[in-house]
Amino acid sequence: MTGIPKTYQRIVLAARPRGPVAPENFRLETLDVPELADGEVLIRNHYLSLDPYMRGRMSSAKSYASSQPLDQTMIGGTAGQVVASRNDYYRVGEFVGGMLGWADMGVSDGVLLRKLDTTRIPLSTYLGVVGMPGMAAWYGFNQILEAGAGDTVVVSAAAGAVGSVVGQLARLRGCRVVGIAGGPEKCEYVVKQLGFHACVDYKAGNLEADLAAATPDGVDAIFENVGGACLDASLARTNAFARVALCGLIAGFNGQEMPIKNSRLLLLNRVTLRGFIITEHMEFWQQGLQELAVLVANHQIKYRETVAEGLAAAPQAFMGLLQGHNFGKQLVKLI
Amino acid sequence: MTGIPKTYQRIVLAARPRGPVAPENFRLETLDVPELADGEVLIRNHYLSLDPYMRGRMSSAKSYASSQPLDQTMIGGTAGQVVASRNDYYRVGEFVGGMLGWADMGVSDGVLLRKLDTTRIPLSTYLGVVGMPGMAAWYGFNQILEAGAGDTVVVSAAAGAVGSVVGQLARLRGCRVVGIAGGPEKCEYVVKQLGFHACVDYKAGNLEADLAAATPDGVDAIFENVGGACLDASLARTNAFARVALCGLIAGFNGQEMPIKNSRLLLLNRVTLRGFIITEHMEFWQQGLQELAVLVANHQIKYRETVAEGLAAAPQAFMGLLQGHNFGKQLVKLI
Repeated sequence: MTGIPKTYQRIVLAARPRGPVAPENFRLETLDVPELADGEVLIRNHYLSLDPYMRGRMSSAKSYASSQPLDQTMIGGTAGQVVASRNDYYRVGEFVGGMLGWADMGVSDGVLLRKLDTTRIPLSTYLGVVGMPGMAAWYGFNQILEAGAGDTVVVSAAAGAVGSVVGQLARLRGCRVVGIAGGPEKCEYVVKQLGFHACVDYKAGNLEADLAAATPDGVDAIFENVGGACLDASLARTNAFARVALCGLIAGFNGQEMPIKNSRLLLLNRVTLRGFIITEHMEFWQQGLQELAVLVANHQIKYRETVAEGLAAAPQAFMGLLQGHNFGKQLVKLI
Repeated sequence: MTGIPKTYQRIVLAARPRGPVAPENFRLETLDVPELADGEVLIRNHYLSLDPYMRGRMSSAKSYASSQPLDQTMIGGTAGQVVASRNDYYRVGEFVGGMLGWADMGVSDGVLLRKLDTTRIPLSTYLGVVGMPGMAAWYGFNQILEAGAGDTVVVSAAAGAVGSVVGQLARLRGCRVVGIAGGPEKCEYVVKQLGFHACVDYKAGNLEADLAAATPDGVDAIFENVGGACLDASLARTNAFARVALCGLIAGFNGQEMPIKNSRLLLLNRVTLRGFIITEHMEFWQQGLQELAVLVANHQIKYRETVAEGLAAAPQAFMGLLQGHNFGKQLVKLI
């Protein structure tokens, strides 16, 4: 086990946020690398995934998942390499994904790890387009929106890790795809690189009118990552029997009021809205990830990553993610 | 055709409401009874149904149905008796249901009429518990809520024509049924006569806390007729994977803002919400009405009617309905 560091770093939740997440909510710690017990694997994490769901875990409010405990390693998905193993199934040098948290190393009994094949797609994609965000897009689009050729699909946070995949899946299906994103640079990326038919810049201050202009035939399906004014603007354009996949409400992560003002349209247009948590639909993951991996390998789905360098940069990158500073999937490169 | 009046009365929409519906929105007119053409039927209406959906039709705002035209007979469901016929299928004396509007007589070509069997259940029930309101309850409960034994179901406007049926269907299914209604008299009726397990009086000013006390195991299914604070209070109690059948939003019929403040819970609790319009699901009517007729004939479903006397009383009765003054199905007796 030469070359294995004696210590590693992790970031713990130091205090729960009051309002926006702040640097003092986190604390960087250095720990000794533990000795492996029989059956355990030591992993050097190469990438940490930063995701909006983490904001919910930082609060103590009731949620679908338990709160992140104080003074414990922040929860998070990781992709890395086995550097030591006392488990027959995992060998040194193999790439694995897991939930080892905000840390540059981790120990696992192997049960919740999975081997990652990096021969056709890069390791980092298993945290994004071929990982949890990609699956959220795949499930919401295929199992909830049920959009067909010619349908108009609106996707909020269109330049993000989830939204960018939703829009490309919809385009491949033959839908008219309209994104909502923040700023002209993201909108240009969404249209020119990802192939959306249009993208509305919500920061331009004219969301309702701009979205109306971009959806001349109304809206048949909404993939919602943001909530608040975004969702209301999309609901205002719904056609009869429109579907809403409610995947995220990032507009309200700091506890802002986020009412659905257009509730009347849910009835008038006989809308079906469904909130979902992708980790509760594991029965679809094998199929979905396989489809996504092929699409990425064939360059039919493009992706973009915003990569922060080093574990110490994670808090700032996470705060940026919550404010929409990222472009595509937000990662932290750890090695 | 002896005994048939030469004239009849109708009520037309005189002006669209600005804010609450007012008497001057309506005008009572007397018209000559027309001569029947070949294939036509002349019907003496015995009952006119008053329903919340009419409020939407009175506005010119976009809706799922076309607006009620000005100076035309107000739309409405009717149950009456054939008094003259030039149609081989309909004979004088037969009872028929139709959409002849706010009028004490009407002419039909027979296409949209249906014969009503009054041997086991009264004529008026075909406008309520065995009519459109009953079907809204049946469809929303069976096709959207999918509630099973032990589930907690919340029903708003629980003493109304739709809510009273929803609650009884849920009770027969073995659910725990909690109503929301306005005032102690309605709540007592809902519990003692209709067999709900509890009923919360929203007028008592303590809706959230009272509903929480009445739903110790949370809420699995919501049949929503009201919207606004009612829906928010119910959403606040949802369990994971709760369902919401959105049937009406009577709280907002005068154009009030009616935001869903608890939008966050739609995601956190992975709620499925579906708005529906019962007239779009005719494929279920034969089955549903048959089941409801049997349940009513066997006294397994009870109902109550608020009956206004005479066509001229219809506007006042309708305004009362919108303010929740009715108890069960609001009818106008025309003969």
